[in-house]
Amino acid sequence: MQEALHVDGGAHNRQIVTNAENRLAAAGIQLPPAVAPFGAYVPAVRSGDLLFLTGMLPTLGHKPKYVGRVGKELTGEQGRSAAYTAALNALAVVREQLGSLDRISRVVRLTVYIAVAGAGVDQPAVADGASVLLRDVFGEDKMSARLVIGVASLPLDVPIELELIFEASD
Amino acid sequence: MQEALHVDGGAHNRQIVTNAENRLAAAGIQLPPAVAPFGAYVPAVRSGDLLFLTGMLPTLGHKPKYVGRVGKELTGEQGRSAAYTAALNALAVVREQLGSLDRISRVVRLTVYIAVAGAGVDQPAVADGASVLLRDVFGEDKMSARLVIGVASLPLDVPIELELIFEASD
Amino acid sequence: MQEALHVDGGAHNRQIVTNAENRLAAAGIQLPPAVAPFGAYVPAVRSGDLLFLTGMLPTLGHKPKYVGRVGKELTGEQGRSAAYTAALNALAVVREQLGSLDRISRVVRLTVYIAVAGAGVDQPAVADGASVLLRDVFGEDKMSARLVIGVASLPLDVPIELELIFEASD
Repeated sequence: MQEALHVDGGAHNRQIVTNAENRLAAAGIQLPPAVAPFGAYVPAVRSGDLLFLTGMLPTLGHKPKYVGRVGKELTGEQGRSAAYTAALNALAVVREQLGSLDRISRVVRLTVYIAVAGAGVDQPAVADGASVLLRDVFGEDKMSARLVIGVASLPLDVPIELELIFEASD
Repeated sequence: MQEALHVDGGAHNRQIVTNAENRLAAAGIQLPPAVAPFGAYVPAVRSGDLLFLTGMLPTLGHKPKYVGRVGKELTGEQGRSAAYTAALNALAVVREQLGSLDRISRVVRLTVYIAVAGAGVDQPAVADGASVLLRDVFGEDKMSARLVIGVASLPLDVPIELELIFEASD
Repeated sequence: MQEALHVDGGAHNRQIVTNAENRLAAAGIQLPPAVAPFGAYVPAVRSGDLLFLTGMLPTLGHKPKYVGRVGKELTGEQGRSAAYTAALNALAVVREQLGSLDRISRVVRLTVYIAVAGAGVDQPAVADGASVLLRDVFGEDKMSARLVIGVASLPLDVPIELELIFEASD
């Protein structure tokens, strides 16, 4: 596995091993096209080194791939797959914004919103569908902080929405 | 329409066209007084170039202007109006914090939390009540990333709460 | 009360009075051990001056100290105690990450997610369980922006989860 070393010249020197694109290719993962927003917003905004993503949903094209609540219309395993699908959409947006996943120096924070009907869902296991993909692509040294929140419903009645903040390097 | 050009001398040079105050005045919009917090928190915190706002509610004075859940006690159209009202409160806080809306170089991220009774609400349309105002005031080139989340209930039983992060320039 | 003065040499000069550790000791508060994450994430991520925490729960060790929803299985007062417990866990993570609470120059933003069964909960009063502790430890001049959100359920079926962003100084 080829690794490039990059030393940030800024205030916070940090050695960055950038091989996310290699890892993705080695895993045989092809990213979908980046989702285009429907309304008065954009897929991502960069401010300084931080890249804030729009809420990522488990969609394919502009259609929801999963509909329903985890623990009611959908199983926990389906919720986990939905989280994985939403995370793939996030990677597609990052690549479109920055040109390459290798420009991510850190996954700063991930929030996994899960549509649930009530208590009893293993929410961390559902959220791992996104977290594990991000770890496998960006590496253990770039793992994010994480929140998991069970909510009433989400846009398009999908089961998962991801909030993501990345740190980008130039 | 009068436009001022400002070139940020910092690490990320960015040409900023600042005419939000003009656009607001041209639209005949008067901002309410900035909401004063009730407890052990403040209306906004700036760290570096980022301005993090307290959750903005559809209140007038210290009273909720809308009460209930969208899709149950309130229609989608009322939800959209509540999102607009909350966004006006956000603008009032920004102007109070920075002196002028023209010091905003970017609307970084907007999260629209919508109190819902279940599925079936057109959440993006409700959220547009806030997004469209922000786009019309700050311009298309400063549009934010956005999340929309349907939740069980919000403080004062209002239908909308906005999370907002802005980028400020000096 | 001993106070150290620190002048940040960065772009935004700010005089920081750092006595959070003293205040904590004076109040006789002992922090629990910092919670270790279970999965593919870390307790906190620093990017620039911002420290983003993983969602803090009202746990002791790896067990939930409170289970249920506020206004249903739990009273508002229990919810407030749970928010306080989660905030203690946040302080423990901050100290572990930075070496000392005195390196916090600002509590930037706090979001209090409260698991509720419906309307009628005094959500701000519940959230104060966290906000008041943070104010008492870090001081009025470092008070955060705040959001309060009532949600369907949270991991481990706890009543409270905290989102926290701090600003750190070197």
